[in-house]
Amino acid sequence: MDKKFMQRAIQLAKEAEKNGDVPIGAVVVKNGKIVGEGYNRREIDNNPVAHAEIEAIKAAGEKLGSWHLDECELYVTLEPCPMCAGAIINSRIKTLIFGAYDLKAGSASSDSVINLFDLPYNHKPEIYGGICEEETAKLLKDFFATKRK
Amino acid sequence: MDKKFMQRAIQLAKEAEKNGDVPIGAVVVKNGKIVGEGYNRREIDNNPVAHAEIEAIKAAGEKLGSWHLDECELYVTLEPCPMCAGAIINSRIKTLIFGAYDLKAGSASSDSVINLFDLPYNHKPEIYGGICEEETAKLLKDFFATKRK
Repeated sequence: MDKKFMQRAIQLAKEAEKNGDVPIGAVVVKNGKIVGEGYNRREIDNNPVAHAEIEAIKAAGEKLGSWHLDECELYVTLEPCPMCAGAIINSRIKTLIFGAYDLKAGSASSDSVINLFDLPYNHKPEIYGGICEEETAKLLKDFFATKRK
Repeated sequence: MDKKFMQRAIQLAKEAEKNGDVPIGAVVVKNGKIVGEGYNRREIDNNPVAHAEIEAIKAAGEKLGSWHLDECELYVTLEPCPMCAGAIINSRIKTLIFGAYDLKAGSASSDSVINLFDLPYNHKPEIYGGICEEETAKLLKDFFATKRK
C-alpha cells in the first residue's frame, strides 16, 4: 500500500466535484503503476452506475486487456457501496484500500450496513479502511456543507 | 409485469452468447416501453463490470436524461449478483423481475447468498423471481454444457 495512490484518488475526487458530482475518486494499481482511474460521474453522465470504482475498474480492464484484475489494488476515497463491493468481487481485485468509512451505505467493514466480503462469494480481497481518513472524510463534509448553503 | 419484456431479455442474452459471453440479457422498461437494453459483455469488452443489468441501467439513464430510474422496471434473465443488486439500489429501480435463480452468486432472494434488498439501504424494489424460469435457466445450462465439451 502506498498513500501516494490515495492522494491521486483525492485529486480525482476533486474532478468529480467540478462537475457538481459528489467528490469520490479511485485508482487501480498493478505492480506499482496506475492502470485505471475514475471518479464519480453520476450527475454529469446521468448514469447511476458511474461510481468512481466502476469507472476505474472498467479502465483497468480495457488497459490490461482482461477482466481478471487479480494482481491489482483498488484505492478509493470512500468505503464502497454494495454495487462497488460487488464489482470488486467480480473483478477479483486483490486488495481494497479505502479512505473514509460510510456507515450508511458502506459494504466493506464490520461497522457498516454489511461487509459483503464476509459472505460466501467466490472472492475475498484484503481490505484496509480509514487510510488518509481525515482528508478523505473532509472532502465529502465540505461538499455537503457547501450544498446546504 | 409483462413476459414479453423477459422474452426480449432472452433475445439479448443470445447476443452475448454470440460473443462467447455467458448469455444474460436485461431490459429497463418505463410506462410499458423499453428505455434501455443490455447484455453481458465481460469477455468481449474485457470489462468485469459489463453485466447485462449495468449496461441496461446505463442506457436507460442516458435515454431518460436522469440517474433516477424510480418509475422503471428491470427485467433480467438471471438473478442479480451483488454488484447488480447494488446498481438497482443506486438507480432506485421500482421493480425487479428476474428469470433463473442463482444460488451461488445471487443477491436478491432468500435462498441465495443474501437478499441485499432486505438490508437497511435506502431503496427497496418490488421483486419477482423465477419468471420464464425454465427458459432462462436452459440458456445457461446449454451454454455451460457446450463449454465443457
